[in-house]
Amino acid sequence: MNLEDIMGQENTRESILQENIGQENVHALRISALREEMRRDGIDFWMIPTADFHASEYVAPYFQTREFFSGFTGSNGTLLVGLEEAGLWTDGRYFIQAEKELEGSGIVLYRMGEKGVPDIPQFLLEKVPENGTLAFDGRIISVKEEKDLEKKLAAKNARFVIDRDPAEEIWTGRPGMPAGPVFVLHEEKLAGETAVSKLKRLRDQMDKAGAAYYVSSRLDDIMWLLNIRGMDVECNPVALSYLFVTKDSFSLFLREAEVTDDLLPHLEAAGGKVRSYERFEEFLRTYDYGDGKVMMDPRSFSCRLGGAIQAEKVYAPSPLEAFKAVKNETEIRNLRECYVEDSAALTRFIYFLRKRAEKALRDGDEYLTDPIDDENVDGSDSLGAYLNEYSAAMRLDGIRRQIRDFVELSFPTISAYGPNAAMMHYEATVRDHADLRPEGMYLVDSGGQYLRGTTDVTRTVALGPVTDDMIRHYTLTLAAQMELQHAVFLHGCTGRNLDILARSYFWKEGMDYKCGTGHGIGYLLNVHEGPQRISWQKPAEGAPEAVMAAGMIVSDEPGAYRENLYGIRIETILLCVEKEETPDGRFLCFEPLTFVPLDRRLIDKSILQPQMISWVNEYQEEVYRRIAPFLSEKERAWLREETLPL
Amino acid sequence: MNLEDIMGQENTRESILQENIGQENVHALRISALREEMRRDGIDFWMIPTADFHASEYVAPYFQTREFFSGFTGSNGTLLVGLEEAGLWTDGRYFIQAEKELEGSGIVLYRMGEKGVPDIPQFLLEKVPENGTLAFDGRIISVKEEKDLEKKLAAKNARFVIDRDPAEEIWTGRPGMPAGPVFVLHEEKLAGETAVSKLKRLRDQMDKAGAAYYVSSRLDDIMWLLNIRGMDVECNPVALSYLFVTKDSFSLFLREAEVTDDLLPHLEAAGGKVRSYERFEEFLRTYDYGDGKVMMDPRSFSCRLGGAIQAEKVYAPSPLEAFKAVKNETEIRNLRECYVEDSAALTRFIYFLRKRAEKALRDGDEYLTDPIDDENVDGSDSLGAYLNEYSAAMRLDGIRRQIRDFVELSFPTISAYGPNAAMMHYEATVRDHADLRPEGMYLVDSGGQYLRGTTDVTRTVALGPVTDDMIRHYTLTLAAQMELQHAVFLHGCTGRNLDILARSYFWKEGMDYKCGTGHGIGYLLNVHEGPQRISWQKPAEGAPEAVMAAGMIVSDEPGAYRENLYGIRIETILLCVEKEETPDGRFLCFEPLTFVPLDRRLIDKSILQPQMISWVNEYQEEVYRRIAPFLSEKERAWLREETLPL
Repeated sequence: MNLEDIMGQENTRESILQENIGQENVHALRISALREEMRRDGIDFWMIPTADFHASEYVAPYFQTREFFSGFTGSNGTLLVGLEEAGLWTDGRYFIQAEKELEGSGIVLYRMGEKGVPDIPQFLLEKVPENGTLAFDGRIISVKEEKDLEKKLAAKNARFVIDRDPAEEIWTGRPGMPAGPVFVLHEEKLAGETAVSKLKRLRDQMDKAGAAYYVSSRLDDIMWLLNIRGMDVECNPVALSYLFVTKDSFSLFLREAEVTDDLLPHLEAAGGKVRSYERFEEFLRTYDYGDGKVMMDPRSFSCRLGGAIQAEKVYAPSPLEAFKAVKNETEIRNLRECYVEDSAALTRFIYFLRKRAEKALRDGDEYLTDPIDDENVDGSDSLGAYLNEYSAAMRLDGIRRQIRDFVELSFPTISAYGPNAAMMHYEATVRDHADLRPEGMYLVDSGGQYLRGTTDVTRTVALGPVTDDMIRHYTLTLAAQMELQHAVFLHGCTGRNLDILARSYFWKEGMDYKCGTGHGIGYLLNVHEGPQRISWQKPAEGAPEAVMAAGMIVSDEPGAYRENLYGIRIETILLCVEKEETPDGRFLCFEPLTFVPLDRRLIDKSILQPQMISWVNEYQEEVYRRIAPFLSEKERAWLREETLPL
Repeated sequence: MNLEDIMGQENTRESILQENIGQENVHALRISALREEMRRDGIDFWMIPTADFHASEYVAPYFQTREFFSGFTGSNGTLLVGLEEAGLWTDGRYFIQAEKELEGSGIVLYRMGEKGVPDIPQFLLEKVPENGTLAFDGRIISVKEEKDLEKKLAAKNARFVIDRDPAEEIWTGRPGMPAGPVFVLHEEKLAGETAVSKLKRLRDQMDKAGAAYYVSSRLDDIMWLLNIRGMDVECNPVALSYLFVTKDSFSLFLREAEVTDDLLPHLEAAGGKVRSYERFEEFLRTYDYGDGKVMMDPRSFSCRLGGAIQAEKVYAPSPLEAFKAVKNETEIRNLRECYVEDSAALTRFIYFLRKRAEKALRDGDEYLTDPIDDENVDGSDSLGAYLNEYSAAMRLDGIRRQIRDFVELSFPTISAYGPNAAMMHYEATVRDHADLRPEGMYLVDSGGQYLRGTTDVTRTVALGPVTDDMIRHYTLTLAAQMELQHAVFLHGCTGRNLDILARSYFWKEGMDYKCGTGHGIGYLLNVHEGPQRISWQKPAEGAPEAVMAAGMIVSDEPGAYRENLYGIRIETILLCVEKEETPDGRFLCFEPLTFVPLDRRLIDKSILQPQMISWVNEYQEEVYRRIAPFLSEKERAWLREETLPL
């Protein structure tokens, strides 16, 4: 799955659409209601970003306040409401969608990154009156974000109101906060390291930093540390929670409904206990810190909670983020296993697609169809139903669900045909999708959450005749992907050093993909994880530029995107491993975890160097060797053909 | 020339050797004299690095105080003298040499980078008494270095004495400060931009930074800004000087002997005048800054001069460094021309070597010899004198001197045969050198200062039979060098992104060269210039990570170094140019400036990919096309053979 996030917004979108039926300007009305409060309380501007209390990438419906007020459903956007005007800031992926969704709301669209368009601080610097008041929910703005805003608006001497939720008085029928039960990971078979041991490592970092306490609101950090998982965010097995660690104990703050019978003894054994999620702020405010310092990551801890702590702070990038990025031996053994099973699922899906495409070509049909008989996908008649992006995704998800210890998808499957694949964040829906035809290319980016890990994989396949450009760009993408997979590098390198290995294939053609080449992946956690990242660009200010280490996993997913024509992405997940130690240093390399065939119909051997052709052949052979045992006889015979040397 | 600096230390070494003849422990005596002063003045430690008042890479003999006290002649080292003990810190390149040179001095060698060896701040933190006193010449320690030292020694509350020169009372017969005349570059034909225009750009940066004044002690920055050059440092055409710029005028601080007739009207036309070098500190101390701020680069401006300024400071990396790195059209036109002529000189030298090696092989001689008749190098008898590293360098330097507008060498020629080439900083001398034999490899790294620019080039050539390892490593080095030369990259990239293109050829073999792949080069200025640099590693703290820009030049010089066996380096200078602008961005690439043949005897075609073979063939053809016009008929015929396709 690509770095661009794809949110499961279907529910919200539905409810907003329904409301719109009866009342044309529901969003304008809601903003009016907010303005009334603002006038009453002397607030000049309300800033409403999309975020939860935990700096999560995906947020539960409860937190979709920005959508509630604006009607805009994209994954990235900030609403700014003034007494006389309102604006929504979003990026290029959403300009068309936002324009449509904002219609009639009176909200002005600010196209981020376009020439002459001010960003939010610039806008505020101009519009906020001297000594004016800016409000935002201080639980969803980080310590660092608030500090930056303060610095940028210094000239206006603005007052910040941070203890209010703009939707509180207005959003009737707001979805509840999710409260799934928390479960404990088997420490030996699944986690590979006890919570006790992880806590010790954290406390060593606290000692080093001279801190007596560590606080965190990062959900995946907390889950990882305590070897627990939750069910509060779709596709992310995390529980809404906070963490407070001292030198010899810790508290996990949870909603009551989440606490399970085996959780308490598990935490107790590690020296901790459960407290109430709702009373975390009060706890922070009233705790007696003595002269101990409190360590926190200012990029994720909220400014309101930060302000509640009456003690000296030590700001540092989360040590838990760095720890959990390096998978341990148990995790690696499980990952290797579940990636092969996940790869087999996708391979079987590709076999299905291929057979339906071949049938359509044979029969001269304009569209691919669903078969009557799944056992006989290549010859059987069809149900009469067209195969489309959405039904294809459902079918893949169904195959994946059969894998033992499957928990849920790791993100909504991206199933994109033809020009739709040029949109990195595309999501087909039950009502809005393209039908598959026996020509051109189809891209599928998908993954699962298993007890044995989190997967993510993309393949692009030909469904019939393709153009020379498609073949050339697939071949380039493949070479780029393979080049990174075969990287060898000295310990000390970061993703900024490595990125060009993949990207230079595109740059030589005057092309570029507008995202990183790769991201870290959690272990039964978020599909996007830091701190490592494969990208040539500098990390955001305050973010670490993480050194690659053995045990890290990263995606390797270059792509060729041609607007309104097609999109190609090949994504294989790589495990960073030690290669050798020589007098010149310690060298690392990658081992692929993903084994799904590449599409030989889309490869132009004549533009590859012999070394690259060998790499492709070796990989295809390895795919056959590892995946064949999971296939039926027919599937196996097909895979044999698909993976023969070029 | 490689990033490791190679200093012309011969004079100092000579004088020290001579002194040692009469008196075994001259350095111990000098240190005793210093300690006497220290006791008298209450100083606990004296720190004596190698530096001048201008943070120069190469320093004039006047500034070689560290050598004077320690006897150690390496280019990198800091002497620390305490009341009871003295230590010298240097890096791995100099361990053996330092051990020898320090013998009998009582100075302990601290091997930097070795396990358990403290660095200087760590050492001082342990040894300096509470409220103790540390002395160093504040004119040779930068603002940033002093601040860092202060921070690291904060626990000791040490007092810094910075207004003393340790050699002042002790160094009788100290060489004078150099004082060569300053000359003015032809602004149209050579500089390509008037000093007036450059000053305007500087003042724009001052405005942006909110500064009313700019001060600099960086010699190459000052020379570049004012379109002048000097003769005060061997191989660096700079004049010892300081610069003080206001919004509408400027002062250049020079020694009186350096001022020439055409300098004054030149400066006057740009709104400036000359003041006395010796009175710069006094000028800074007594100037009326009003409420204006003073902009300076804390990495090069000295802490003593910084302390003399009674005004608020704005610290920023030198804008002049960034400006001068991007060559203008006139400079580029001149560089293209003079690099071809310089390449022809080296090509003719290689022809000479080759012919003498062939003769030795033919005649079964053990050594190469100098010919009686230069016109007939391939057949004539010899003078009887052996060709050695030193005489070979002299011959190359002689050929280079014949190029019109040659000024001087850009650094002492590195002429290294066999195992000597494994030492990146090797310098053969008239008394200490290897004779050349018709076997193995010879490496030559050299360059010149011309009115049309500064050159730097390395080639490694076979003098006779070579081993398979030599061929394999030369081929790797060649592929690495060519890969970077053919890089294409988006605007915004830095050398950290590009380095792996070259280096990965080595990393895949478990090898690494312990230096950057490339450095910037001045225009009739220093052979090492920033801010751009091709290296995967992070720049030193406080140094910018410079974005590559069209007009920058960089060296491309990977190498394979095998201790006690051989060294290989291929260095071609590249000019960064615009390649194309597409919907995906602005792309840059490189154009080689250097055209010297690669040694086909050392290339194993079988381990190169076809693309690489084409690149090598194209380059060799281009070498022939550009260099042939500068050669005699015999040389031309030879070059034709040398550059035929592999």
